[in-house]
Amino acid sequence: MSLPQHDAIVMAAELLLQSRAIHGLLSRFQSRMKFCSVCGHTVESLVPPGDHRPRFVCTACSTVHYENPRIIAGCVPEWEGKILLCKRAIEPRRGFWTIPAGFMENGEAVQDAASREAVEEALANVEIGSLLSVVNVLRAHQVHMTFRARLLDTDFGVGEESLEVGLYDESEIPWADIAFLSVEFALRRYLEDRRSGVERLHFRDIDYQEGKVTLRDR
Amino acid sequence: MSLPQHDAIVMAAELLLQSRAIHGLLSRFQSRMKFCSVCGHTVESLVPPGDHRPRFVCTACSTVHYENPRIIAGCVPEWEGKILLCKRAIEPRRGFWTIPAGFMENGEAVQDAASREAVEEALANVEIGSLLSVVNVLRAHQVHMTFRARLLDTDFGVGEESLEVGLYDESEIPWADIAFLSVEFALRRYLEDRRSGVERLHFRDIDYQEGKVTLRDR
Repeated sequence: MSLPQHDAIVMAAELLLQSRAIHGLLSRFQSRMKFCSVCGHTVESLVPPGDHRPRFVCTACSTVHYENPRIIAGCVPEWEGKILLCKRAIEPRRGFWTIPAGFMENGEAVQDAASREAVEEALANVEIGSLLSVVNVLRAHQVHMTFRARLLDTDFGVGEESLEVGLYDESEIPWADIAFLSVEFALRRYLEDRRSGVERLHFRDIDYQEGKVTLRDR
Repeated sequence: MSLPQHDAIVMAAELLLQSRAIHGLLSRFQSRMKFCSVCGHTVESLVPPGDHRPRFVCTACSTVHYENPRIIAGCVPEWEGKILLCKRAIEPRRGFWTIPAGFMENGEAVQDAASREAVEEALANVEIGSLLSVVNVLRAHQVHMTFRARLLDTDFGVGEESLEVGLYDESEIPWADIAFLSVEFALRRYLEDRRSGVERLHFRDIDYQEGKVTLRDR
């Protein structure tokens, strides 16, 4: 992994700030499964025959309840060189800035999830472009998939989950107040690629071990 | 969408065959949630305040149970120009051929899920390369992410979920017996890109409406 020096300094500060935020969030990702959603009996954590990992298995009907990572789909919408950013109105990270992004829903494509989130969070009509980044957020059991996007008009607004929405020049991006490491990663790689004129796909793992955030680029 | 003619003919035949297989599988993807996994009470399907979609919500503790798409991670392992394929020992599509692929697990990266599946299904050590395809399988609530991969040695074998594992030249690939449309898509795009010497990322949606499979490339 090689990073420009200013990037490394900003990142160190970000990591310190976000370690705290992440620590508070981790409890959300611990499974709270106690009962079988099919028959209502209690579940036990055990390794089913032929499997390699403990799963919640119903003690009555034997249903195995798998838990798998969820996809967060988002995009970096651009209009005349400026980036659309939203200030979050909801936890986690209320008051911090992000790009439109959220949980992908059943029955939709990743790209459609990304453009739907732009509508919901910023009332923004976008055309989804190339895939910009895939970030494995290991402890949160999430994969953040972010696309490049073209804002189709300037009729955007403040969606229900946002406090403020605006278009920002590269020099105006509030780096110290970006809500999530995966968003910072996507934005920085977006701007770098824009400068170099090559749309690449970037991968990163974000993990949280022994009280520290660890990053791994691939 | 533009496809070479032979591709279109093979695909038409495949679609007919697979429509039947998919029809039988769809019931697996209907949610069977009746009880709250947190407190054991019954759930109701309703749109929670501030939401836009019906969710299963507990009538006692008010927990909202979200259901989201799952990621199937896989790879196309190559060794001296040949592709590693596995004949499936399990349903769905037992007896048909596939690449190593399976459900991504909590706590792992997509790339690590893809290489783990190569170990489990083919006892194969691979080095994961670039992302080859992302296929939205809409009715199955799945996203199939397939990577290019280099087989690191020929010490592969037949994993528990396989009947047979082997290395196949392009001319030997059993196109009529490939297990899934997303796998056929990944293999065809892999071979095309190998011929042209450019590693691109390919997107497709696979849906099933009114008894027919529909495809959309992006």
